[in-house]
Amino acid sequence: MRIDILTVVPEMIEPFVNCSILKRAADKGLAEIKIHNLRDYTTSRHRKVDDYPFGGEAGMVMQIQPIDACISALKAERDYDEVIFTTPDGEQFDQPMANQLSMLENIIILCGHYKGVDWRVREHLITKEISVGDYVLTGGELPAAIIADAVVRIIPGVIGDEQSALSDSFQDGLLAPPVYSRPADYKGWKVPDILLSGHEAKIAQWRYDMAMERTQRLRPDLLK
Amino acid sequence: MRIDILTVVPEMIEPFVNCSILKRAADKGLAEIKIHNLRDYTTSRHRKVDDYPFGGEAGMVMQIQPIDACISALKAERDYDEVIFTTPDGEQFDQPMANQLSMLENIIILCGHYKGVDWRVREHLITKEISVGDYVLTGGELPAAIIADAVVRIIPGVIGDEQSALSDSFQDGLLAPPVYSRPADYKGWKVPDILLSGHEAKIAQWRYDMAMERTQRLRPDLLK
Repeated sequence: MRIDILTVVPEMIEPFVNCSILKRAADKGLAEIKIHNLRDYTTSRHRKVDDYPFGGEAGMVMQIQPIDACISALKAERDYDEVIFTTPDGEQFDQPMANQLSMLENIIILCGHYKGVDWRVREHLITKEISVGDYVLTGGELPAAIIADAVVRIIPGVIGDEQSALSDSFQDGLLAPPVYSRPADYKGWKVPDILLSGHEAKIAQWRYDMAMERTQRLRPDLLK
Repeated sequence: MRIDILTVVPEMIEPFVNCSILKRAADKGLAEIKIHNLRDYTTSRHRKVDDYPFGGEAGMVMQIQPIDACISALKAERDYDEVIFTTPDGEQFDQPMANQLSMLENIIILCGHYKGVDWRVREHLITKEISVGDYVLTGGELPAAIIADAVVRIIPGVIGDEQSALSDSFQDGLLAPPVYSRPADYKGWKVPDILLSGHEAKIAQWRYDMAMERTQRLRPDLLK
């Protein structure tokens, strides 16, 4: 899988790509993440990528020309399954969407910044708008990193212990049960006896019961 | 405002803190973000911060001792309003929560990693569990960065043009209206005439109508 991320502040996302699960996936040849600086695609003499909005609103707007030029250059090299824009009014990103995206071949993620991108980008160049949550951020760089992380980590072979990903919250429709590690007694706070018992079947039942109880209490919507 | 972020992979979040809005807020003296490496607080000779889970599940668990030591050291220096843990089964992070958190003095954010943290941390040391969305990530570092970004950017004075933050999606209960910038005609894709008209009142009405129409169509839940 290949993910091309388009941004005006590459320094905000490059370090994450170079040290996280994304780096491990790249080293294994399972995913390729490329960061593109939109300033490299502007026809402006001053490498400008933003300008004032028409109609006099506050804030600056990312212009269409460098974005169109970058997307066109990428599309000339290969086919893309989706051109994604991260925006708080997009479709809610969730685990099923992460699973779907992880099966694609090539995707582009455009990170918004400043007041937003010229609307014509969204009308004519974007195929899917995704929101990672109901909050406003300085830019789309963190959402792009979130999408890349959630999608790449479930590509088979990326994380060493696949059983671990399968028992994550959401993957089986339930919240994860509690986990404990050493020491068994820390300042009087103890690990449940059942986990120290060695009874595999009873432990599995306890985990299921805890996951079900927590899901019913905290997220009954997941059980519908 | 001061935010202390506790992590086992500081290199994953430090570059973001040092180049984003968080840096600007720090330079202006409006926010202070400190990253703490949990390995600096372990009593293990090998700087180990994780161990196998009791009961034989897959994955590794972050141990309680270094987390407790770090939180205790911080609490000895100042009072904290909240000790936050980022987890997909926590309370949903949204703009009203960002607004509330931005009014606090000192908060701690603990980033989970590996299979999770020892449950006793959540039972005894954490005061608030927050989820940034219904998806599973490699760690809590991106969610911590998201919370810090969303919270710090709305502290008055952090972003230059406050009008810009007030007209963001969600702050007025509506999705943001479209924005456009130069050129007015790009490959035949044109900016709406009204925005070029110079009629301030009509433009304001158009923006409101567009915001309302988009909210009704895409997110009717925000209008309830």
